[in-house]
Amino acid sequence: MKIILIFTGKSEKGFITDGIMRYHTRLHHYIPLEIKIINVAGKFGNQEIQKIREGEAIMAQIPADSQVILLDEKGKDFTSRQFAEMINTAIHQNIRRLVYVFGGPYGVSGEIRAKADKIIRLSAMTFSHQVVRILFMEQLYRAFTIIRGEPYHHE
Amino acid sequence: MKIILIFTGKSEKGFITDGIMRYHTRLHHYIPLEIKIINVAGKFGNQEIQKIREGEAIMAQIPADSQVILLDEKGKDFTSRQFAEMINTAIHQNIRRLVYVFGGPYGVSGEIRAKADKIIRLSAMTFSHQVVRILFMEQLYRAFTIIRGEPYHHE
Repeated sequence: MKIILIFTGKSEKGFITDGIMRYHTRLHHYIPLEIKIINVAGKFGNQEIQKIREGEAIMAQIPADSQVILLDEKGKDFTSRQFAEMINTAIHQNIRRLVYVFGGPYGVSGEIRAKADKIIRLSAMTFSHQVVRILFMEQLYRAFTIIRGEPYHHE
Repeated sequence: MKIILIFTGKSEKGFITDGIMRYHTRLHHYIPLEIKIINVAGKFGNQEIQKIREGEAIMAQIPADSQVILLDEKGKDFTSRQFAEMINTAIHQNIRRLVYVFGGPYGVSGEIRAKADKIIRLSAMTFSHQVVRILFMEQLYRAFTIIRGEPYHHE
């Protein structure tokens, strides 16, 4: 299996990019991981139009044989163990590509919402769509240590 | 009102410290903010003893006239607006010091749990106690933009 993360908008330089790199390097030992950045040119002056354009660009990056998981504030809560279990299940179901989609500051289009096989959220709180990237990658790293039974996660 | 954050264990150099600094600078415009680091010397070889020693050191850093909020996995979920409202209420109640306590990788002692006026959590997921610092500071910054009605937070 391969994991693909689709982020909407470039990652900020500095601590955001450094944090992403930290966990990208660590994750590399467990699974092939690719990060795709959606960067739709132009200011649309309208959030809805921007979301639609971003949605089209996101769709173009999702391979046909993927399980698609949207990160969204209206999604379901998971504990770290449940999140790890979801990945482990995908591995055992021979899912070829697990694609996690992250919207921009205004979320994603209806098209992406409809495309998602699952919608999950990291928190009841709203976090910056930049900070969420670090958060998610740490969680993904944590998931693989749980799957492997390695001593990183404490209850 | 003044906000005090008590972190257990030094903040890692690199992206963690950089992220904390980013939001510390921004928060400075809204409220006096102090970060205290608990760094109990010695390896105790026993998580319970370590938590008790850390708890004692945390207690020594909590001023008498404080409202104490513990960040803990067993705490209550808040949305960003509810979290902001909790701070705003403390301001209007003339609370002098709002103290947020963050345990180490194994959590906090029973003494600290008993001392807490409120227990909250950021997520159903477990995050590294280092990454949580960035997360929380972004949320604190977000809370003040909500209180002030500034255009940072989107629903």
